[in-house]
Amino acid sequence: MHLIDLITRKRDGGRISPDEWRTFAVDYAAGKFRDYQVAALLMAVFFRGLDDEETYALMEGMLDSGARLDFSHLGSAAIDKHSTGGVGDKVSIILAPLVAACGVVVPMISGRALGHTGGTLDKLESIPGFNTRLSMAAARAQVERLGCMLIGQTDEIAPADRKLYALRDATATVEAIPLIAASIMSKKLAEGLGGLVLDVKTGAGAFLPETERALELAQTMIAIGERRGCPVVVLLTSMDHPLGVACGNALEVEESLDVLRGGGPADTRELTLALGAEMLVLGGAATDAGEARSRLEHALNTGAALQKFRQVIEAQGGDPRVVDTPGEVLPQAAEQLMFFSHRSGFIQRVEPRVIGRGIIALGGGRTTMEDTIDASVGFRILVKPGDHIMRGQPLAAILARDAAGAELGSACVKEAIIIGDEEPARVPLISHRVTGRGVETLTK
Amino acid sequence: MHLIDLITRKRDGGRISPDEWRTFAVDYAAGKFRDYQVAALLMAVFFRGLDDEETYALMEGMLDSGARLDFSHLGSAAIDKHSTGGVGDKVSIILAPLVAACGVVVPMISGRALGHTGGTLDKLESIPGFNTRLSMAAARAQVERLGCMLIGQTDEIAPADRKLYALRDATATVEAIPLIAASIMSKKLAEGLGGLVLDVKTGAGAFLPETERALELAQTMIAIGERRGCPVVVLLTSMDHPLGVACGNALEVEESLDVLRGGGPADTRELTLALGAEMLVLGGAATDAGEARSRLEHALNTGAALQKFRQVIEAQGGDPRVVDTPGEVLPQAAEQLMFFSHRSGFIQRVEPRVIGRGIIALGGGRTTMEDTIDASVGFRILVKPGDHIMRGQPLAAILARDAAGAELGSACVKEAIIIGDEEPARVPLISHRVTGRGVETLTK
Repeated sequence: MHLIDLITRKRDGGRISPDEWRTFAVDYAAGKFRDYQVAALLMAVFFRGLDDEETYALMEGMLDSGARLDFSHLGSAAIDKHSTGGVGDKVSIILAPLVAACGVVVPMISGRALGHTGGTLDKLESIPGFNTRLSMAAARAQVERLGCMLIGQTDEIAPADRKLYALRDATATVEAIPLIAASIMSKKLAEGLGGLVLDVKTGAGAFLPETERALELAQTMIAIGERRGCPVVVLLTSMDHPLGVACGNALEVEESLDVLRGGGPADTRELTLALGAEMLVLGGAATDAGEARSRLEHALNTGAALQKFRQVIEAQGGDPRVVDTPGEVLPQAAEQLMFFSHRSGFIQRVEPRVIGRGIIALGGGRTTMEDTIDASVGFRILVKPGDHIMRGQPLAAILARDAAGAELGSACVKEAIIIGDEEPARVPLISHRVTGRGVETLTK
Repeated sequence: MHLIDLITRKRDGGRISPDEWRTFAVDYAAGKFRDYQVAALLMAVFFRGLDDEETYALMEGMLDSGARLDFSHLGSAAIDKHSTGGVGDKVSIILAPLVAACGVVVPMISGRALGHTGGTLDKLESIPGFNTRLSMAAARAQVERLGCMLIGQTDEIAPADRKLYALRDATATVEAIPLIAASIMSKKLAEGLGGLVLDVKTGAGAFLPETERALELAQTMIAIGERRGCPVVVLLTSMDHPLGVACGNALEVEESLDVLRGGGPADTRELTLALGAEMLVLGGAATDAGEARSRLEHALNTGAALQKFRQVIEAQGGDPRVVDTPGEVLPQAAEQLMFFSHRSGFIQRVEPRVIGRGIIALGGGRTTMEDTIDASVGFRILVKPGDHIMRGQPLAAILARDAAGAELGSACVKEAIIIGDEEPARVPLISHRVTGRGVETLTK
């Protein structure tokens, strides 16, 4: 296979055959192609797109480039959730132990912070000792014992996707729907899932802000899943403002613990329950959403979910005391500054991208792959769009390493939180539910 | 400068500033960017294009990445000719000594075979000892003494273009008009020219077959030249069939010598005179095309042009006896096979791409950069579209290394030469003349 022929054909609007895509993925993982040729191909795909067959074949090639997990012997379907990325979105941390506590196997493979969005692995690693790099064998054993893992993509899982992803990130070819869909699905299907719930973000803080493109991504992933016998349910959810209150790595672990104890901000809890209910139904642990929510709420109220998280933390080498005394175990920022409103009015917007970039500027994210993260820094955003606030009311807490950081964070909050006179229209948290049967528009 | 920002901006239809393009070219030549990022940028440029300012700035950056020649002290303007590439096009070999013999300085920098097209350097190197790799100092001294050089792009000339060109060739981003224009003009302007004549090919064997795109390329290059005070005249010429009779490296040198002796095929001679006349007028050696043609014909008839070629060959280390006894000096193919027509009728087409690829298949071109060329092989195409031929009439001679090659060449001729009953419409050799003042449509 000459890559130059594939590049030329795709560039000119032609089609690369399924066999060619599969060979491409496996051979690229094996180091057979030059990155500069693959980069040109990716940019041609960005402009020309892939049809359904091409997308599926690329996904399959990436999947086949690595190893696969299989939990079919456990007697319960393995179900995972994936989000396309947001600010303040700590739902995975809550969801994995919560759903596992309800009897569904959750072999969750998560990612790191990307662009302005946070990453589940980075958040979990704020728990001292927590190890997200398990071998396939150790991960498999843990899932068999606890019904749950919270790990990162290993070298064995979809290595072609790992390489392609890094190249896309360096060549501005991330935002192509077929490439996003193939990348996510190759990793998820390697987990040996019986069902998958996807949280596709829309709005200002999402990688694909427009609802139409989010729906297109949802339907592309659903089609791939169905073709492999893995039912996929997608919720389109708002990333118009940060989710919950806490934004920053250790802060988000704390909020996750609050929700696991039955409390926490309403939106974080609601999104967790909605996604969890889909997982329980897909996993056969409930017959409908109502029953599923009851079971989830029960697991939160009885402490079963929290206990499951404690076991997972312990199994992965983390300090389990974080569950009872997070303030003593998690890293704490040296500087805390409260930001007060200079006027009365309605909160118009809380810009997630500004907050996300603010976390990075405070030291809580990376600007190069080699950067280390300060897990203690971040924001507590105390208001939501639509809230009426009074002059002098606290809008946010800034958690920083030093006074300079606090000042920087303060400027960032000032930029992110927009106040006006009119009450803005409310944006629903969950706008659409998409399955193989179609699209439902929701309003809650 | 972060290349990822430039890629993203161009990808999304934005503009890269002139300063950014200049910095890009100089920094790329200095090895500051990764090839995979540059490849993604080139493919984004392929889809989004460059405006005039961007094209000019990229050209300028490539020019500034290297050294420049200057012949302004010679008292005569330096004029060059460049062709966008064809099959059987040996005009440069004839034109450089011919125009120099008329008193115009011709510091010609040529290229190698590319795709299905031949390269002037490869043809010249079929003359034993001929050295196309002169240092800048040696090239300058030769031009001062003989008014002519026939060399390749040195490391010192537009190194950013050299690197970009190699990358474009490997990433299917050659056929972008702004990139072609900037590449050609950066090399040509480095020669310190007072004027430039471009032969932009159209038709089946051209890199840009459509007249409209060829005109766009012509106008882009004219605009760049004018902006640097270098007038550019473009002739759009037909590459619907191979030029002249000889196709293959040593064979084309032989045909060039025929033309320099005042003979040769009518189309090769006509195109040489048309391009040469433009060069003489641009160089101030004639006041109009009529006077210019008289001077060129005089230089052919008196042997002055042939004598100039002999001097250039000798100066560049080649065996000057080639001029008098080419058959004894140039490599000769072991096998010669004549291909006869199986029917009577009119020649409909002689496909230049088929002939060009045939030369490569016979060993007269490269399939990788490391291949060595057998200069002896090729074709003599004895018919032109529109010719009426009889059954059993010879159509072409095949020159090959062995019987297998002759058979291969025979199959190639059979594919390339199409015979039919109707007399086809004649395509003019030169269809348009384009200058800074506009486009003239020609019919000869």
